[in-house]
Amino acid sequence: MTILSFFSRASRSFNGYPACSKLLVLCTLSSGGLVAYSESQTDVSNTSVEINAKDCKKRRVVVLGTGWAGISFLKDVDVSAYDVQVISPRNYFAFTPLLPSVTCGTVEARSIVEPVRNIIKKRNGEIKFFEAECIKIDAANKKILCRSTFDNNLVGNEEFSLEYDYLVIAVGAQVNTFNTPGVVENCHFLKEVEDAQKIRRSVIDCFEKAVLPGLSEEEQRINLHFVIVGGGPTGVEFAAELHDYVQEDLVNLYPTVKDLVKITVIQSGDHILNMFDERISSFAEQKFSRDGIEVQTGCRVISVSDKEITMKLKSKEEICSIPHGLVVWSTGVETRPVVKDFMGQIGQGSRRVLATDEWLRVKGCADVYALGDCATINQRKVMTQGYYSRVKKC
Amino acid sequence: MTILSFFSRASRSFNGYPACSKLLVLCTLSSGGLVAYSESQTDVSNTSVEINAKDCKKRRVVVLGTGWAGISFLKDVDVSAYDVQVISPRNYFAFTPLLPSVTCGTVEARSIVEPVRNIIKKRNGEIKFFEAECIKIDAANKKILCRSTFDNNLVGNEEFSLEYDYLVIAVGAQVNTFNTPGVVENCHFLKEVEDAQKIRRSVIDCFEKAVLPGLSEEEQRINLHFVIVGGGPTGVEFAAELHDYVQEDLVNLYPTVKDLVKITVIQSGDHILNMFDERISSFAEQKFSRDGIEVQTGCRVISVSDKEITMKLKSKEEICSIPHGLVVWSTGVETRPVVKDFMGQIGQGSRRVLATDEWLRVKGCADVYALGDCATINQRKVMTQGYYSRVKKC
Repeated sequence: MTILSFFSRASRSFNGYPACSKLLVLCTLSSGGLVAYSESQTDVSNTSVEINAKDCKKRRVVVLGTGWAGISFLKDVDVSAYDVQVISPRNYFAFTPLLPSVTCGTVEARSIVEPVRNIIKKRNGEIKFFEAECIKIDAANKKILCRSTFDNNLVGNEEFSLEYDYLVIAVGAQVNTFNTPGVVENCHFLKEVEDAQKIRRSVIDCFEKAVLPGLSEEEQRINLHFVIVGGGPTGVEFAAELHDYVQEDLVNLYPTVKDLVKITVIQSGDHILNMFDERISSFAEQKFSRDGIEVQTGCRVISVSDKEITMKLKSKEEICSIPHGLVVWSTGVETRPVVKDFMGQIGQGSRRVLATDEWLRVKGCADVYALGDCATINQRKVMTQGYYSRVKKC
Repeated sequence: MTILSFFSRASRSFNGYPACSKLLVLCTLSSGGLVAYSESQTDVSNTSVEINAKDCKKRRVVVLGTGWAGISFLKDVDVSAYDVQVISPRNYFAFTPLLPSVTCGTVEARSIVEPVRNIIKKRNGEIKFFEAECIKIDAANKKILCRSTFDNNLVGNEEFSLEYDYLVIAVGAQVNTFNTPGVVENCHFLKEVEDAQKIRRSVIDCFEKAVLPGLSEEEQRINLHFVIVGGGPTGVEFAAELHDYVQEDLVNLYPTVKDLVKITVIQSGDHILNMFDERISSFAEQKFSRDGIEVQTGCRVISVSDKEITMKLKSKEEICSIPHGLVVWSTGVETRPVVKDFMGQIGQGSRRVLATDEWLRVKGCADVYALGDCATINQRKVMTQGYYSRVKKC
C-alpha cells in the first residue's frame, strides 16, 4: 500500500514551493491536511483557535467511509488539533484492485484487508471508530444519523446521531444495476471482499453441479457457462483470472468436463475497455479471442433470471436469451442513497455526484467536504501557464 | 495430517504377525483394506472374482462421507479392484481439531481443509466424487438416494440414486441440541469450518457493538458476555482460545471495554472435561479460575433466546436467566436422520448408533459397513491373554 504514502512524499517535496500548494491540493484529493489547510484559508482572520484553546475542546471532524479516500484522510489528519470520529459499515480497508484475484484464490481475502482499528491505533488511538452506516446527513443542524449494521441481537440503541463541526464524506459509490429486473437476486457483484469470496465458492459449486450424475452434456454446459456483464476493467480482469483458474487448476480437478467450460463477456458498447486507448481494447479483445473467451458487444441486458440472461442486440433490435451457470455484474457504480438525499438538501439534486470546489468543499454547504467516488471537483483554472512551467521545473 | 498415515504404517508393521490381524482391524477402524479383507474371509470359497473377470466389471463400492473415517478409507482402498464412488455434502476434508483456532484467527480456515478431489487425484483419479447428501439408504435394493445440496440454480436432476455392491457408511454425527428451544436459531456451533468462520466474525461484531455510542456499561457487558454451553473438549478449548484472543489482541484494539469482557462455561455435570481423569478436570478448572473464565457446573440449559439463556440449577431446582452477547453450543453429537432411518430398516431402531461386528460389517445387513462416529463395534473377546502378550512383544 505504498500508494497511500505517495501523498505524504508529494507533500514534502512541494514544501519549498508555496506557489504549487494549490496544485498539490488538487493532486492529493484526499489528503488529511485538507480540513486544516482550507480552514486556514477561510478563517485566517478570526480567532477560532484562541476560542478553542479557551474551551479546551477540539473541533469535531466526522469522517464517513473507510475506503481509499477515507483512509487516506485518516492517515494524515492532525489528531492533536481535531477530535476525529469515523463511521463505516466495514471495520476494514480493502485493497480493491486485488478483488478479482480473491475470486480465484490466487490471493487470500485476509491478505487484502487491513483493520481500521489497526490503522487508527498508529494515530495514538485518538480517532474513534463506529461500525455503522450513515443513513442521513442533516447539514442544517450539523449532525448525522447512523444505524448499526448488525442484523441481530443488538443490546442498546440501534440508531444514534453524531454532531460535527466538519464533515468529510468519503462513502464511495454502490453497484449500479440500472434497475434491471433480477440482477440483485441472481447476479454476483465484485465490489466488496465478501462478494469475491462468494464468487469463489460459487465457481466451484458450478463445477460440482456439472459433474453430478444424470446430467446431459447440454445441462453440464449450462452449469459451466460463466457470464460477465460489463466489459470494464473489473469485468475484464475477472474474466481473465477465471480463465486462468479454469485452465490451470480446475481442469485437473474436473477432467470430465474440461471442454465444456465457457466464459462470455457481455458489453453494451462496441468494445471492451472502451474507456482506454483503442490499442488496449483491441489487444484485450484479441487475447480473449485466442483464449476462447467470447466477447458479445452491442448487447444490453434487459433481465436476469436464475437460469438465463435476456438481452437486446442493439444492432438488430432483437431479443435473445442465453442460459448461464453464474453471472457477475460489473457495469459500474452509482451514487449512494444517503448522498443523493444530501444532494437534494443542498440544491445539487440534478447532479450525478457531489460537486466540490478545488478545496474539496461541497458547494452550497459550509464545513462539509467530499472526496473519492462520491464527489467530483469543479476546479477553477489554477493550472495557468505560469504554474505549470513552475511545476515542470520541480 | 500424518495421523492418517498411521494406519498404513501400523498395517506394515503387523504384516509378519497373522495372529494380530484381527486386532489390527479393531485398531485401524477405517482402513481402506477392510472391504477387501473381510470379503476374502466370507467369500473365500466362491468364484466372484472369476465372474467379475469375465464380466470385466468391477464391484461398486459407495462411500458416504469425507470426514476422518471416509477419507482414511479412501486413502487405502484398492482402486484396481473396486469401482469407488464417494458422496458427501462437503467436497473437502477438514482437520477438525484445529477448528477452535480458526474461530480466533490463529489458524486460517484454508489451512485446515484439503479438497477431496486433490486426495482422489492421487489415487489415479479412479474414484468418483459427488457433492450431495445421502437422504435414504435402501438396503433391500442395494441402492442409495442422494440430493444435491446446492440451494439454487441447479440445471438437471436434483435427486439421483446410486447402486452399490458394498456400502461404506462414514457420515459422522450431527450436533445434538437435545431439542432445546431456541438453540438452532440463536446459538453458534463448532462442528464445521463455516461454523468457525461465523464465530470469528461474530466475536468481532460483539466488540464493535459494545463500543457503539450511547450504550450503558451494563449493555456493553451484555454484548461482551460470551457463553459456551458444554464443558467437553471442544467447549473448553474454544473458551481457552477465546480468552487468549481477547487478552492478547482484542483488548489492544478495543481498550475502552477491555475490563467488561466475560467468558462463561456452562456444564450440566459437576466438572468440565469429566470424560477425562479427575486431575485433568481439576487442572482445567483451576486454570480457568485464574484466567477469570467462569465455570457454572450443575446447570441444564432449558432455552436460549437472542438475548438470554435460561437454565435450571440442578441442586436447587431453581430457574435463572443470564443475558449474553454470543452463545456457542457444544454439548456433543447425535446420530444423523439418514442413519436413524437405516437403523430402523435393519432392526437396530432402539440403538444410539449403528452396531457393527469387529470387521465393521453392520449387523443385520449384508455388504454394508459403518465406521467413525456413526457406528460402534460390538466386538467379540479377541483380546485374550495370548494375543495381548504377543502384541506387547511386537
